[in-house]
Amino acid sequence: MTWTLHGTNAQEGDLVQLVGLRHKSFLLSLKAGAVFQTHRGVIKHDDLIGKPWGSQIFSHNGSPFFLLQPALGDVIRELPRSSQILYPKDIGYILVTMGIGPGQHVMEAGTGSGSMTTAFSFAVGKEGHVTSYEIRPDMQTRARRNLEQLGLDDRVTLKLRDIREGFDETGMDAFFLDVQYPHEYIPQVRAALKPGGFFGSIVPTTNQVIRLLTELRLNRFAFIDVVETILRFYKPEPLHFRPVDRMVAHTGYLVFGRPIIEDETQTSPDLLREIGLLGLEERDENSDDSEASPDLEE
Amino acid sequence: MTWTLHGTNAQEGDLVQLVGLRHKSFLLSLKAGAVFQTHRGVIKHDDLIGKPWGSQIFSHNGSPFFLLQPALGDVIRELPRSSQILYPKDIGYILVTMGIGPGQHVMEAGTGSGSMTTAFSFAVGKEGHVTSYEIRPDMQTRARRNLEQLGLDDRVTLKLRDIREGFDETGMDAFFLDVQYPHEYIPQVRAALKPGGFFGSIVPTTNQVIRLLTELRLNRFAFIDVVETILRFYKPEPLHFRPVDRMVAHTGYLVFGRPIIEDETQTSPDLLREIGLLGLEERDENSDDSEASPDLEE
Amino acid sequence: MTWTLHGTNAQEGDLVQLVGLRHKSFLLSLKAGAVFQTHRGVIKHDDLIGKPWGSQIFSHNGSPFFLLQPALGDVIRELPRSSQILYPKDIGYILVTMGIGPGQHVMEAGTGSGSMTTAFSFAVGKEGHVTSYEIRPDMQTRARRNLEQLGLDDRVTLKLRDIREGFDETGMDAFFLDVQYPHEYIPQVRAALKPGGFFGSIVPTTNQVIRLLTELRLNRFAFIDVVETILRFYKPEPLHFRPVDRMVAHTGYLVFGRPIIEDETQTSPDLLREIGLLGLEERDENSDDSEASPDLEE
Amino acid sequence: MTWTLHGTNAQEGDLVQLVGLRHKSFLLSLKAGAVFQTHRGVIKHDDLIGKPWGSQIFSHNGSPFFLLQPALGDVIRELPRSSQILYPKDIGYILVTMGIGPGQHVMEAGTGSGSMTTAFSFAVGKEGHVTSYEIRPDMQTRARRNLEQLGLDDRVTLKLRDIREGFDETGMDAFFLDVQYPHEYIPQVRAALKPGGFFGSIVPTTNQVIRLLTELRLNRFAFIDVVETILRFYKPEPLHFRPVDRMVAHTGYLVFGRPIIEDETQTSPDLLREIGLLGLEERDENSDDSEASPDLEE
Repeated sequence: MTWTLHGTNAQEGDLVQLVGLRHKSFLLSLKAGAVFQTHRGVIKHDDLIGKPWGSQIFSHNGSPFFLLQPALGDVIRELPRSSQILYPKDIGYILVTMGIGPGQHVMEAGTGSGSMTTAFSFAVGKEGHVTSYEIRPDMQTRARRNLEQLGLDDRVTLKLRDIREGFDETGMDAFFLDVQYPHEYIPQVRAALKPGGFFGSIVPTTNQVIRLLTELRLNRFAFIDVVETILRFYKPEPLHFRPVDRMVAHTGYLVFGRPIIEDETQTSPDLLREIGLLGLEERDENSDDSEASPDLEE
Repeated sequence: MTWTLHGTNAQEGDLVQLVGLRHKSFLLSLKAGAVFQTHRGVIKHDDLIGKPWGSQIFSHNGSPFFLLQPALGDVIRELPRSSQILYPKDIGYILVTMGIGPGQHVMEAGTGSGSMTTAFSFAVGKEGHVTSYEIRPDMQTRARRNLEQLGLDDRVTLKLRDIREGFDETGMDAFFLDVQYPHEYIPQVRAALKPGGFFGSIVPTTNQVIRLLTELRLNRFAFIDVVETILRFYKPEPLHFRPVDRMVAHTGYLVFGRPIIEDETQTSPDLLREIGLLGLEERDENSDDSEASPDLEE
Repeated sequence: MTWTLHGTNAQEGDLVQLVGLRHKSFLLSLKAGAVFQTHRGVIKHDDLIGKPWGSQIFSHNGSPFFLLQPALGDVIRELPRSSQILYPKDIGYILVTMGIGPGQHVMEAGTGSGSMTTAFSFAVGKEGHVTSYEIRPDMQTRARRNLEQLGLDDRVTLKLRDIREGFDETGMDAFFLDVQYPHEYIPQVRAALKPGGFFGSIVPTTNQVIRLLTELRLNRFAFIDVVETILRFYKPEPLHFRPVDRMVAHTGYLVFGRPIIEDETQTSPDLLREIGLLGLEERDENSDDSEASPDLEE
Repeated sequence: MTWTLHGTNAQEGDLVQLVGLRHKSFLLSLKAGAVFQTHRGVIKHDDLIGKPWGSQIFSHNGSPFFLLQPALGDVIRELPRSSQILYPKDIGYILVTMGIGPGQHVMEAGTGSGSMTTAFSFAVGKEGHVTSYEIRPDMQTRARRNLEQLGLDDRVTLKLRDIREGFDETGMDAFFLDVQYPHEYIPQVRAALKPGGFFGSIVPTTNQVIRLLTELRLNRFAFIDVVETILRFYKPEPLHFRPVDRMVAHTGYLVFGRPIIEDETQTSPDLLREIGLLGLEERDENSDDSEASPDLEE
């Protein structure tokens, strides 16, 4: 079971994506002698092994497919899931913003269906590691199955736990928090994440963002960013080039921050205010409202 | 010179980011005995070596800074550059969509200031490789310097070439084309990229997208997607939570595709039409819909 | 038949909107003795006449409805139509940008289902007038029926014509062009519209915008703006306030401009260049591409 | 003093817009014998009177201008102001959604610099009327001056009042509330607005939307919509057609609703729930979905 994106021809053990009519797509691992059944006919794995990637192939009844290596974005879209989707648009920005790359040690809670776990374990490579907590055994089981199919399971430690009790690990390079009430676990996250490490979370409502912002500040997280990512797709028609008619309007608000260490002997109110660690309380009491305080705005 | 995101304390050779007042930020490599000069005072590297990441530190005249490990997004923003910026928002989506991860062999043209080269070489890790072509020696020099500072230069081969002459390599896993007239080089790219590999490009104008779409189809690229990524940032104020006032409205249109191999003995017009390899010409002639027109815009 | 938004109680002749379960909505004109049939039961007009606006009423089988006066946005959404929709989001911006208000004389082509005709004739009031050309008799008939139901027909002159032949009127205050190939009729529009008048158009594809821009410049239109309007709706839930999941991504590009008169005895190349009436040709020949010419950018 | 958009030539008393280099624009009223001074030279009104709209004219030192009739959008942009801007993008959608057109009686609080007052009084025409409350005398004075310059003052009644004390009028067709804490005045607004009338408000932060939604429901407003309007402008260059680089990301959230009358003898929980007048409390207590929380954010 290998999910490789290198190489020119499909080989036994490779994870492949078959894309047929109406963008219907399947992920499977090639195994000599095995057979892939679809309502569009039967395909022998032996007919795929050795073929160049990008080949057009046909099922026994002539239904056409293309043989492809799936990118991270494709895998995320195809994974069996029972919970909220994390979209490729968000995942890409999370990876780039949270310093995720070969060699990092990343922690996550909760595991969910494992889409973010997949992204992290793909990106950290063989030398990195992902530790992922989940409270529901059924979700963990599904995530484990997904990771095994992708050959990523040996980079991941899955733990079953109510994270209110805290985490076993400390000094993590990055922590992604994707649970129902993220604002309730910030002290626990703070304890597991190394100072200066990368914190990220995704929440669907503005009410949750507001609560999370308050907790992050109380727990001395700085460099807080809140951002939405939006994708606008176009019809790829050279003679009628225009956006598609409808789009995803909302998946969630991404919230990022860095736990910092203050100097006990020396302090800089200006810098602390700029990064949001001073001044919140003052604003609460004195501010009439946001418009009345233009100097607080960026 | 190591750009590491692992570890808890700054060490000699580490790439560090110092963030001071007004979000003023600096990248430097720690070297025992060295001194960092800024208009906000002097900082001895020796005072940073050994400090935990996330620490608040002060220059000789009391100006405050935070000591951080920079994520890919931070590095891209800070790199010295002389050409068009590739934004983290686009880079994240490109990596996730083009199958970039540890171990891949990626090709790029042109190198420019090396921002995409940096992203690719970071993401492919030590086992991967990036080959990047550029026509202008000055740009290549700057990119090389940037890569050396980041310790990524041994994963990258930089070549000086007018890519109209084609590429030395074949069988590349992914190809990113970021030049002024990408539509002029599609046959050369097709020859370097393995079938089923990932093609990506970014262009600023719709006119360029239109030309590129035509060339990609003529050269048997399928699964073409055109998309814009948009980031909407919010003021992280829990009592006045709202979007920032102004935003980046446009960086470029991302165009993706996969070169595919058709079966010479068997064909599926339905699938070819769906993936855009049949029907373009018919539509031109027969369509009477509101957008139709015989002449392709320049 | 009166579409009034003044008054507190429904009266005979009034245009009313009934809104029932699942946001199912109906427009009707109140007539003593008449009966409104719906698959959710029967409602006697006499039971509505005299009721205060905003009342909850019930059909004979207990199905609930609210009795409302429809705003322009509601009417546009409810009009029977057979062609492309013009959305309230676009209409509002068109009215504000094209100087439409009580007393203006506005021209339009084509009439279509009459949604823009409705908006214009509502906004210009009794003292204004709308002249609308259409080539298809069936469309004109439908538009006439719609305008009659709304009591707006005496402010509107509907004409049947291939607009390639030009228009009977001159000196119009504003002209809205909503046809398949707007770029083909710019000289005719120029002849009908007064100098300094307001031109507007909506086209779905970038290819059409590009052609239209070229024609507008050749015909001495200045102050050209191209803009998309986007609405982002939110779930109105105070405890879970967030955007809706999906949204309309595209209706069309709005293109505006003003035909101007140049002074034959004196000229200002600077101003002409700024408003787009000089320099286009030079750019065509000399410019490498848009990025190479940063001084042309705003 | 007439702001007319009809007619082909500039006449004494007309409101005109002069647009010069760098999109520098001026509003003035033509008066025989008067002189317009600008740092780009002197222009005699007598040289403008009689000229066709759209003419290019020159100041005494040769600086070029165009002579135009300003649309509502242009006037709003040019008005002297001391408070938050209401943008044309929002105003157009407000007019179309709130049933504003010739003949309506509209109420507004606060007046501010009079931009929304201008829009309403323009749109309701001579037969309509606008009543606008403001607490600050200086703001009212500025708004009055603006309305007088536009010749709209006889359609507007300006009142000075702390609206906490309520309004003198009842049965208003529409009410636009643009004050710092709109959620504090909903009962007063309810008393002034006719049942079934149109309520609208604009607030900059999500916190304010959340509070306003709660108050609107408690005061039996239904058909509540929350929406943002976004404009995306393009560079009108046919050879390099693309969006502008930066855009306005946020002006405010528009909140609309209609006060309705419930039937005391008969009820429809289904419909009330659908329009948001039932079920809020239940959801608070019973919901265990990811966003739920007992405490409303402040």
